[in-house]
Amino acid sequence: MELTTYVNNLWIVVAGILVMFMQPGFMLVETGFTRSKNSVNIVMKNFMDFSVGAITYWAFGFGLAYGGISVGGFLAYGSFFLEGDSINYFFQVVFAATAATIVSGAVAERTKFSAYLFFQPFICGVIYPIVTHWVWSGQGWLSELGFIDFAGSGVVHMVGGFAALAGIQIVGPRIGKYDEDGKPQNIPGSSMVAGALGVFILWFGWYGFNVGSALSAVDVDLASIAVTTTLSAAAGSITAMYVSMISGKPNVGMTLNGALAGLVGITAGCANVNNLGAVLIGLISGVIVVYSINFLERQGFDDAVGAVSVHGICGIWGVFSVAIFDISSGLLFTGGTSLIFPQLIGILSISAWAYGTSYFVLKVIDSALGLRVTVEEEIAGLDATEHGTIAYGDFITKS
Amino acid sequence: MELTTYVNNLWIVVAGILVMFMQPGFMLVETGFTRSKNSVNIVMKNFMDFSVGAITYWAFGFGLAYGGISVGGFLAYGSFFLEGDSINYFFQVVFAATAATIVSGAVAERTKFSAYLFFQPFICGVIYPIVTHWVWSGQGWLSELGFIDFAGSGVVHMVGGFAALAGIQIVGPRIGKYDEDGKPQNIPGSSMVAGALGVFILWFGWYGFNVGSALSAVDVDLASIAVTTTLSAAAGSITAMYVSMISGKPNVGMTLNGALAGLVGITAGCANVNNLGAVLIGLISGVIVVYSINFLERQGFDDAVGAVSVHGICGIWGVFSVAIFDISSGLLFTGGTSLIFPQLIGILSISAWAYGTSYFVLKVIDSALGLRVTVEEEIAGLDATEHGTIAYGDFITKS
Amino acid sequence: MELTTYVNNLWIVVAGILVMFMQPGFMLVETGFTRSKNSVNIVMKNFMDFSVGAITYWAFGFGLAYGGISVGGFLAYGSFFLEGDSINYFFQVVFAATAATIVSGAVAERTKFSAYLFFQPFICGVIYPIVTHWVWSGQGWLSELGFIDFAGSGVVHMVGGFAALAGIQIVGPRIGKYDEDGKPQNIPGSSMVAGALGVFILWFGWYGFNVGSALSAVDVDLASIAVTTTLSAAAGSITAMYVSMISGKPNVGMTLNGALAGLVGITAGCANVNNLGAVLIGLISGVIVVYSINFLERQGFDDAVGAVSVHGICGIWGVFSVAIFDISSGLLFTGGTSLIFPQLIGILSISAWAYGTSYFVLKVIDSALGLRVTVEEEIAGLDATEHGTIAYGDFITKS
Repeated sequence: MELTTYVNNLWIVVAGILVMFMQPGFMLVETGFTRSKNSVNIVMKNFMDFSVGAITYWAFGFGLAYGGISVGGFLAYGSFFLEGDSINYFFQVVFAATAATIVSGAVAERTKFSAYLFFQPFICGVIYPIVTHWVWSGQGWLSELGFIDFAGSGVVHMVGGFAALAGIQIVGPRIGKYDEDGKPQNIPGSSMVAGALGVFILWFGWYGFNVGSALSAVDVDLASIAVTTTLSAAAGSITAMYVSMISGKPNVGMTLNGALAGLVGITAGCANVNNLGAVLIGLISGVIVVYSINFLERQGFDDAVGAVSVHGICGIWGVFSVAIFDISSGLLFTGGTSLIFPQLIGILSISAWAYGTSYFVLKVIDSALGLRVTVEEEIAGLDATEHGTIAYGDFITKS
Repeated sequence: MELTTYVNNLWIVVAGILVMFMQPGFMLVETGFTRSKNSVNIVMKNFMDFSVGAITYWAFGFGLAYGGISVGGFLAYGSFFLEGDSINYFFQVVFAATAATIVSGAVAERTKFSAYLFFQPFICGVIYPIVTHWVWSGQGWLSELGFIDFAGSGVVHMVGGFAALAGIQIVGPRIGKYDEDGKPQNIPGSSMVAGALGVFILWFGWYGFNVGSALSAVDVDLASIAVTTTLSAAAGSITAMYVSMISGKPNVGMTLNGALAGLVGITAGCANVNNLGAVLIGLISGVIVVYSINFLERQGFDDAVGAVSVHGICGIWGVFSVAIFDISSGLLFTGGTSLIFPQLIGILSISAWAYGTSYFVLKVIDSALGLRVTVEEEIAGLDATEHGTIAYGDFITKS
Repeated sequence: MELTTYVNNLWIVVAGILVMFMQPGFMLVETGFTRSKNSVNIVMKNFMDFSVGAITYWAFGFGLAYGGISVGGFLAYGSFFLEGDSINYFFQVVFAATAATIVSGAVAERTKFSAYLFFQPFICGVIYPIVTHWVWSGQGWLSELGFIDFAGSGVVHMVGGFAALAGIQIVGPRIGKYDEDGKPQNIPGSSMVAGALGVFILWFGWYGFNVGSALSAVDVDLASIAVTTTLSAAAGSITAMYVSMISGKPNVGMTLNGALAGLVGITAGCANVNNLGAVLIGLISGVIVVYSINFLERQGFDDAVGAVSVHGICGIWGVFSVAIFDISSGLLFTGGTSLIFPQLIGILSISAWAYGTSYFVLKVIDSALGLRVTVEEEIAGLDATEHGTIAYGDFITKS
């Protein structure tokens, strides 16, 4: 191979390592935003997300996405129990784990660990890989339509977000989340510092996610992707904070989710928009996420970390924003070929697929095993009942 | 472009990503060293440091530093609302955020959030960029004098440290920091583990800061910069611990600040000194930081995390140490052209500029808005009064 | 130098930075798994591990490993107080610190800080460097025999693990670890979230450790090493969890140690085995670590974090697994030259050397200074008695 190829591979490996580090980012956001009596359970789910994800993606997930023979642009077939093709596997497996991990936070504090373990192979090994085949395999039906999703606002984040939506619908709200009038109650998280560290780690890892999706370091302007990513996250964080001040004081949860919203929003278009476009995408992401979180909460959707809004709804916005801000073909800037049709088809098909398949699989698991712990177990906390331990053995806690 | 350029750009992007990760490092040091009733406030300040910093540096900070037309070597003009030149923006914006974040820790636990928000655009967008124009733009008056500051002991750390000094003078000491006789009291931090994690994260990110400042990976010995950085930090950590034992037991706060002192100390000369020089610079940094922290505390300067000593005073030492240990022109080693004059001019001008402008801006903000919260708010904690929440919703805390 | 060399050096520097970040990983595992009254002490030991390690490795450790003149393949001589050769020093010093840090966790909660400080220069500066001379210097007697240890299951992890074994034997079990019948008692850790974050950080840094050990980015398939590393860690995590369920509920401590076991297990063979081999190595590592931890605990060895099992015993398995799964010469796959003899010699000599020299040095320190704190100090906690502080000044703790 030529030196150029080795330089490209070096960057993909480094970027994959950065994306892998998003796993503890999710873990910290989820434990920080929830109560300490369920922290060990969240730790266990996050370790299994990556571990079960890596094994199932090796066994069959990669093969369904990139296995050589495409079955009508819908899925691939081949390369099961993969040997070789390491560079593609390594970068993709960390993405697969990300999609799975998004679900974990939304359904936290009331989901049975064994049932969750059954769901993981489906999302890492089937649901997510098939969407990647549609978009990133070079053989998929969505990419044929002209659909653009550079780093995965749709492929990764909408998949995770809509699977999470199915999850919270089936498992139902946590005890105490709504009062007898159905009014949502605040359930304080165990550590906003852990949550903030998690968001900063995700932001850090996101440079691997977005910039790494160039899948190359040569003949590409990596820095421009890092800059659009930075500007959108920054703008999302700022607007979410100011929007949160409309109904009160500058809110830390909204600010943190605003940064994530800006990151999800720019993920589809990070290589296709200019800096001004990135700032605007982020600004709008920060507004969307606050209203979406408040709206879903009022509708009875109890999302413990805001994952559906951050990843699902802002994922939609990210995919659609490419149609508006894409420099070469966008509406506002140069008026080339309209991306509105392919992006809308992508939004509809990915959300329907992720939601529908997750709903089906989770319903089957619910019927067979029960997806939710008992009332007593939920009140006692999952750490004690599911894992026989406590997370903070040394501290006096309230819950 | 040639492959060499892409390899260089790849390294600069990776280094910039590492420097960005210093943000949670600062956040953890600041929350760990202070009380839990103010942790959310610190989280919010750190998120806004990077977010507001990124937007203002894009809007006008970069233009004042590197905008093309130099106004007498004092500032540049142009490239506002930057498009293009991504590689320079990305590496510089993470530096700008670092300079801003240093202030946040020093004035923690009593500064009004809204007032702090007003200060950020000045330091990220004006005060810091102008100093970079003096030294790193290739057009600045200080670099013309022969001033050397490879990675920013002066440009970044002195700027942050002297802005912090102005801040703590204006905002005054925390309630309870001094008894009625003016004797300083110890205010225990909420988590030394978080503080230590923060320092390790800063140390990790510092490799991006120092080694990345080569702005190249080709025709440069990156590893030698990593080694001088490592040795100085290690030496600073060790001597600070032993110096702390003169008046008691091995002190964790001093040891952690000793590592940071060694890092700040080597930042100016990391590419200009040999390994022995690096060890000596670190040794002396570790001594300086302990005496400086104790001295300032006795003088009535209440610096919640030791930021003025670590970044300001050790920044001076770092800049000056180049005149002593520089291999090509230093006094002790080969006796080339003396750097004493340019380094002293740099120390005086950067400290005066950062202190003076920050003092002026903060005084204006203080008159207009008030920089300090009320006594009741300070006692109740900024998290409750400024953000309507608590950081550790699940834990029983003392404050 | 040619561009290829700069690309290689760039990767080694990045990999070294990743390995350095394992230091806070160890710190978090150790503080998370132990009681909060000893957290500052652990922080201090970890900072000194890296700081004292960096200085002693610069002063004489590197010279004993790679100093030019080999004394009979046993140790080298030269390059003391190193100048130049930065790329080799930087990558090796972070490995040396890792070997030292392993010991810190095992003997936590009862070891005198001053005594520990005396031990560090020996392991970083003598015990570890001499083993690296045997295996990685190109002049050593073990590599002459055909011994293979790509990234250090033996050279780093067995050295740390067997030094830790000597440490826990000499220092004895913690008060309260065994009841009057000698039955082991559970001592709950202060934060499983910190422990889990530590393991994820170690996993992240391990990519630098294993993939970086290629010492090159060109003419090598870096991604394949990242993949074997990922698969083994994932498999280890899963099997350790399931094995822990034989006698109870899915255990978080075992799951976390299972991931580390899989990482240690694959370290020797990560570049020599295929993906299926990596999965099998990890599966077996996860089984070994659970039984080893339980066995050692029942035998009266009180290892506060499971370091002897994770690093020592799984290190043996990692070294031996190369003889089974090596693609070019392994038994199961292609039946080339048997590696059984060199690997067994390596296991015996490294474990004997690390255990024997550590035992001797620690015994001498024990006689001279006393290795263990007093009963009163141990009960009060090392933070108060050794460092005059508490780790969590703001929280109400139980111990």
